[in-house]
Amino acid sequence: MSNVIPLEPKGSPAVSIDTMMDELGQNAKSAAHALGVASSDQKDLALVKAAAALRAKSADIQAANAEDVAAATAKGLAEPLIDRLALDSARIEAMAVGLEEIAKFPDPVGRELDRRERPNGLIISRISVPLGVIGIIYESRPNVTADAGGLCLKSGNAAILRGGSESFRSSTAILECLRDGLRAAELPETAIQAIPTTDRAAVGKLLTMTDTVDVIVPRGGKSLVDRVQREAKVPVFSHLEGLCHTYIHAEADPEMARAITVNAKMRRTSVCGATETLLIDKSAAASYFSDIVTDLTEAGCQVRGDQQAQDLDSRVTAANEEDWVTEYLGPVISVHIVEGIRQAVDHVNRYGSGHTDAIITRNDAAAAEFIDHVESAIVLHNTSTQFADGGEFGMGAEIGISTGKLHARGPVGAEQLTTFKYVVRGTGQTRP
Amino acid sequence: MSNVIPLEPKGSPAVSIDTMMDELGQNAKSAAHALGVASSDQKDLALVKAAAALRAKSADIQAANAEDVAAATAKGLAEPLIDRLALDSARIEAMAVGLEEIAKFPDPVGRELDRRERPNGLIISRISVPLGVIGIIYESRPNVTADAGGLCLKSGNAAILRGGSESFRSSTAILECLRDGLRAAELPETAIQAIPTTDRAAVGKLLTMTDTVDVIVPRGGKSLVDRVQREAKVPVFSHLEGLCHTYIHAEADPEMARAITVNAKMRRTSVCGATETLLIDKSAAASYFSDIVTDLTEAGCQVRGDQQAQDLDSRVTAANEEDWVTEYLGPVISVHIVEGIRQAVDHVNRYGSGHTDAIITRNDAAAAEFIDHVESAIVLHNTSTQFADGGEFGMGAEIGISTGKLHARGPVGAEQLTTFKYVVRGTGQTRP
Repeated sequence: MSNVIPLEPKGSPAVSIDTMMDELGQNAKSAAHALGVASSDQKDLALVKAAAALRAKSADIQAANAEDVAAATAKGLAEPLIDRLALDSARIEAMAVGLEEIAKFPDPVGRELDRRERPNGLIISRISVPLGVIGIIYESRPNVTADAGGLCLKSGNAAILRGGSESFRSSTAILECLRDGLRAAELPETAIQAIPTTDRAAVGKLLTMTDTVDVIVPRGGKSLVDRVQREAKVPVFSHLEGLCHTYIHAEADPEMARAITVNAKMRRTSVCGATETLLIDKSAAASYFSDIVTDLTEAGCQVRGDQQAQDLDSRVTAANEEDWVTEYLGPVISVHIVEGIRQAVDHVNRYGSGHTDAIITRNDAAAAEFIDHVESAIVLHNTSTQFADGGEFGMGAEIGISTGKLHARGPVGAEQLTTFKYVVRGTGQTRP
Repeated sequence: MSNVIPLEPKGSPAVSIDTMMDELGQNAKSAAHALGVASSDQKDLALVKAAAALRAKSADIQAANAEDVAAATAKGLAEPLIDRLALDSARIEAMAVGLEEIAKFPDPVGRELDRRERPNGLIISRISVPLGVIGIIYESRPNVTADAGGLCLKSGNAAILRGGSESFRSSTAILECLRDGLRAAELPETAIQAIPTTDRAAVGKLLTMTDTVDVIVPRGGKSLVDRVQREAKVPVFSHLEGLCHTYIHAEADPEMARAITVNAKMRRTSVCGATETLLIDKSAAASYFSDIVTDLTEAGCQVRGDQQAQDLDSRVTAANEEDWVTEYLGPVISVHIVEGIRQAVDHVNRYGSGHTDAIITRNDAAAAEFIDHVESAIVLHNTSTQFADGGEFGMGAEIGISTGKLHARGPVGAEQLTTFKYVVRGTGQTRP
């Protein structure tokens, strides 16, 4: 079994993209079989050794990263993208610590999820097993190489990684460390592979490899996720947008509502859990909407609203239909004044993206009604939508967030990268 | 909200198939929202009242069925298909009892699957919720209308049913009883709808309705399932084939191995859990393969085998490569003599369909190795592959069996027709 595929072949490649990807897929499938039966100790050793390799090779990684950054700067890449791309020793240390954290979590594989004994004496168990092969397609942040590779390894899945072309050298250097870990634990190196070309056709091929790839996880902007969702024949765990709402109910505590709103919108505006639309009951708005506008404005946020919101506060500019379906990912919020829970729920279910939505209220019955009726992956009561994150949920790490309903929903951690098999134990029973 | 779509429109239909199906989908989605928040009592009442309606209208159903049977007979449908289609009072009573059984099961919706408190005081729960809208496509057996409709209702999902054209009148009469139940429980009638035409284009449309349909479950022969798997844009829970294996290990109890083999193959040859290939260790074969051939032959089974099997017993005819991938669904078995677990596992993973496979052995370590390495949805030790069935697994009923890895695997019961949402309860926490 060879994995010496030339990196970035110059000129006409020796093998076609199709052939190369098929080989990558077959290698991954074989490795997945070996990983699926590897012990917890073996997998954890690989993670810890990979962390050690990241520290030992920190200078090499930074050198590779400097080349990526120089090339990206020369290409005129925007400052925030350069920032995401850049690695220093602190960021590399954070990756190493991340892998060690993953190692400490319990093994999601081999757990007995359910067990029942039948009247005929058969014992039927559901045992968690890895999904198999996970394809991860991401953009400029090279740390995803370590995070995603580590999560797949922990959950016994082989990973096929496809990072952004800007971070190609950095990701390759990080991958080398992961492979050091695999070798140290006597696990197949092909358990974590990267697509060795930046040719976009390779992604197109990956999305259709239903024989060897079990799930694709795209991590990146809307255009990437949209392409993956449209083209993939392989199942996808993803969210296209985080069009999150915070709803201030008539019986909300005003101070709490103000604090949560400004946090939900402004803590970080670029994350998918940031609130994009504020829904507020008419009576609450009459009492303290202007305070909220002050809070938001002082934090640097532009406020757009419906006619009633504009009438209540002159700093509010007009929102149109487009605003209800816009994920600003920046310091802008849209406001819609509602009369009661049903109007709030209808707005969320109609315009939202099924990601994360919150209600602020002292009335538990109202909270329960909102929670029952809102059809999103995450529904919160009296807290900030910015908590929509695998780390905050105690998963240790996440490979992405899913707004789909099947299999994985919300933050996707190691546990959601497993499936199960039924194991039935008998003593010679035949079926009558 | 109207559901008075004309049944089997004659001549040019008043509405196009597309428009009709879109309306069906929207009706289902609205009904799903109502069902998703319905109480357990309400859903169970609907099931019990539907059972009562089946009994009360038994004569009407039989009359409708007699028309279907007459039309099928006139068309020259094969005897086994006519038998599957035919309903008598006992079969109708069995449907009613089936619905009552489903009602008695615990509600799969609203369960707290997981709960953790975070250091910041947030309480994070995973709560089971319905998937939404399930499309079920089936062939001649009209009882699927009651079974599938009942399971969807129990799990809070709206159902769109598409039965075989031969059973159209019977299924329509059964659907009327399910709707009686829904009405009695004040649930929307559109919670269970049937496609009111036998036009095949309607199925094509259903398979692509990703905005309104969450999952498709095909129940029927290979050509139906193959079409659904190829054309569906909506996720599918299915198995294309049940290419099941029974492996007799060197340390099997000979009597147990003989009894299980003949049961696994011959109890019913037409079910997906029937064994199609027998793998037997060389030493076991040398000792009692001829006894097994005798058992099978006396039960009416033809035995095909590799060269070693033919050499051991002259009643064995030659198996070729094609036999290892053939789901006979009849009284034929293929036999491959192996040397040890690894050869058996390799054969299963290479030629099997990931459905159900069994090992017979007294050696628990050997069983564990087989169970770990075989990549099928169901793996059994010392029992018959014919147990691959939701009823036998204690699920009460199944809507189908899935060989896919995502979400549902093995028999798909009410529980697998649910997903979950995260519910996060705070006391004003904002994210630092």
